[in-house]
Amino acid sequence: MMKSRIDEQFDFLREIDKEKEILRQAYVADGTRREDDAERAGHLAMMVMVLGEYSNEPIDKCHTMEMVMIHDLIEIYAGDTYAYDADGNKTKRERELKAADSLFAILPEDQGQRLRALWDEFEENMTAEAHFANMCDKIQPVMLTDAADGKSWKEHGVKVSQLYRRNERTHEGSEKLWDYTDSTMIRPAVQKGYLGDE
Amino acid sequence: MMKSRIDEQFDFLREIDKEKEILRQAYVADGTRREDDAERAGHLAMMVMVLGEYSNEPIDKCHTMEMVMIHDLIEIYAGDTYAYDADGNKTKRERELKAADSLFAILPEDQGQRLRALWDEFEENMTAEAHFANMCDKIQPVMLTDAADGKSWKEHGVKVSQLYRRNERTHEGSEKLWDYTDSTMIRPAVQKGYLGDE
Repeated sequence: MMKSRIDEQFDFLREIDKEKEILRQAYVADGTRREDDAERAGHLAMMVMVLGEYSNEPIDKCHTMEMVMIHDLIEIYAGDTYAYDADGNKTKRERELKAADSLFAILPEDQGQRLRALWDEFEENMTAEAHFANMCDKIQPVMLTDAADGKSWKEHGVKVSQLYRRNERTHEGSEKLWDYTDSTMIRPAVQKGYLGDE
Repeated sequence: MMKSRIDEQFDFLREIDKEKEILRQAYVADGTRREDDAERAGHLAMMVMVLGEYSNEPIDKCHTMEMVMIHDLIEIYAGDTYAYDADGNKTKRERELKAADSLFAILPEDQGQRLRALWDEFEENMTAEAHFANMCDKIQPVMLTDAADGKSWKEHGVKVSQLYRRNERTHEGSEKLWDYTDSTMIRPAVQKGYLGDE
């Protein structure tokens, strides 16, 4: 039997429930357990709501919230790749493209294309909204890992130079928020030994 | 030392990380563990994105997403009150009002007032956006509990009459989605014995 439009939409909404099982390397702020991708997506949406005023360029808040909400869904099929896992990052793009093809195809065609375009926009990182979304994506784990006394950084021996390299473009979303993150979280984290100095 | 605007905003973003620790009675779709409030908020935002077209009245999608994102944050201080816990529901409103006063006060005043107004709007349930947000709030646990073979309904001996009573106003968000939920989830759940009949 052909599925109706609404059947496909509910199939998708049930499928993305699996995002709650994708654990990241970063811990929640109290350090007791790892954060999952669904929790993180919502936290990024809250960052857009609360910090949107600091964007370098004017942004469409709704579009940016939608982008952060969907940007990690493909990890349901592709898995989470830790930022500082060199081998994992070699195959990441290929795994994620395949995952995007499968996941967004569950939706009615027009909606699947719309969400896929949002994901491509996040990945290409060329628009004001993508710049802000990518900035939130980078700053949120710094905020949590700093609050968790550097737990995942220490476990993986992350060096501040690696973190800076990963954040080369973060300022494109908001100079102000990048400066704040650097001066109140990253530099103090080096002082406290949460992040390795060279 | 006086906190700056941006300090207050980051204090709030760290404080709401605790929403990830508020466990609900409902399980995630595979039934392996309870869902937390942060995961649920994001799932509701995805429902607004995917199902908004079925709203009885035109809605501002961004406003509705923001409303579902913040509507359960006050449970960080007030705790989750199970829908079918009669005693807990007697004190719920008072606990939640107090929690809202404390939580939104962490933000700069203008933002605290804006988010508090969103929470009040959800609770009052008088606008098209609040109708749709409240509908998602009610339909999401039905979708998950049905997928989890009725687990939390069976644990608490929930009767279909209780569920219908709780959903008296759900159709105000979308007649179409309420009919779909009733015919493809609730009525079959009674047949399968997930929900008690009288």
